[in-house]
Amino acid sequence: MARTKRSGRRSGNPDTRAEILAAARSLFAAEGYGSISMRRIAAEAGVDPSLIHHYFGSKDDLFMAAIEIPFDPAPEVASVLEGGEIEGAGGRLMHAFVAIWDGPHQDKLLAMVRTSLSKPAMAFVLRNLFEHRIVKTIEATLGDKVDHIPVRAGFVGSQIFGLVVTRYILKLEPVASLGAEELAVTIGPTIDRYLTMPVEHLTAE
Amino acid sequence: MARTKRSGRRSGNPDTRAEILAAARSLFAAEGYGSISMRRIAAEAGVDPSLIHHYFGSKDDLFMAAIEIPFDPAPEVASVLEGGEIEGAGGRLMHAFVAIWDGPHQDKLLAMVRTSLSKPAMAFVLRNLFEHRIVKTIEATLGDKVDHIPVRAGFVGSQIFGLVVTRYILKLEPVASLGAEELAVTIGPTIDRYLTMPVEHLTAE
Repeated sequence: MARTKRSGRRSGNPDTRAEILAAARSLFAAEGYGSISMRRIAAEAGVDPSLIHHYFGSKDDLFMAAIEIPFDPAPEVASVLEGGEIEGAGGRLMHAFVAIWDGPHQDKLLAMVRTSLSKPAMAFVLRNLFEHRIVKTIEATLGDKVDHIPVRAGFVGSQIFGLVVTRYILKLEPVASLGAEELAVTIGPTIDRYLTMPVEHLTAE
Repeated sequence: MARTKRSGRRSGNPDTRAEILAAARSLFAAEGYGSISMRRIAAEAGVDPSLIHHYFGSKDDLFMAAIEIPFDPAPEVASVLEGGEIEGAGGRLMHAFVAIWDGPHQDKLLAMVRTSLSKPAMAFVLRNLFEHRIVKTIEATLGDKVDHIPVRAGFVGSQIFGLVVTRYILKLEPVASLGAEELAVTIGPTIDRYLTMPVEHLTAE
């Protein structure tokens, strides 16, 4: 048995996966997603870096597994954004938002948001999910039409996270009861504007 | 009966104030602010309703004391909104927002927001603070120029709560580091639009 204490981890035994996840969680929480390399996680877990690729694939995939996100919103966001015009992207995003949040994953999503907002040490979960999944997805789909996407995404995020809070946590009416099309008409234009307003003066680069 | 250990509550002894606060907190949490009368709180606390007025003044004042809000934002919101035009109200609100949130009460405000967002039973704190302090303040100051304020306030709230989350909890850049005037120019127009867009079709009344 392997775990007296840790012999055997280097072969592909079942504990290895858990060791890698525990190391990743602890490092992501302490220092954030961006500054932690796969090599660093491997060292912390005491395994060869190739095993991380074997078990989890990419660093993004490892992150998603480590934070136990109920599902990856990136493909839905991508399918709603790709191929369309900027004008109306906010409305399409609202339809995707309602499809995701009013769907079967609502409880798990809400639990993840509550946890991430309630403890400073857990903020990295939502922040990294947003920066490394959502922002990258927007860049991949709208990057040829929209500049400064990371900057704009912060404003889009400020509206989307606020919608989660008012609609699903505080349950403020009428926002809590509106349908997708009503949110598309009211909040969609806000997102369109954040995707098109001048932001050059806000970027440090 | 029963309450032998609590003799003397009806006179103004120091426990009375704590009894009233405990009763108010428990009733507000269980049933929300709107449906709980001063009489009901008095009955729960086992005191005469006049004592509540004696110790706390109005129901609003009792609510603020019960939820231990660090300070009442309503006067600041009122002073920023009154006397001005609708056009630009969002920008003025952003200046007030930064003055309040970047000020000495930030830690206490953040603790209150975290608590209210982390547990379903605590959502009433932010919801009632918003509905019964902020919305009423907007009605008192803009009510002669803007219709359907409770409806519009839900959208304004979705942007403001989201700004709190992205700027102070998730600390997404550049939103986390922008100054008041930059937020006034970027997010101000969103709020102006929520105060002026057509909302008749969203109201049940």
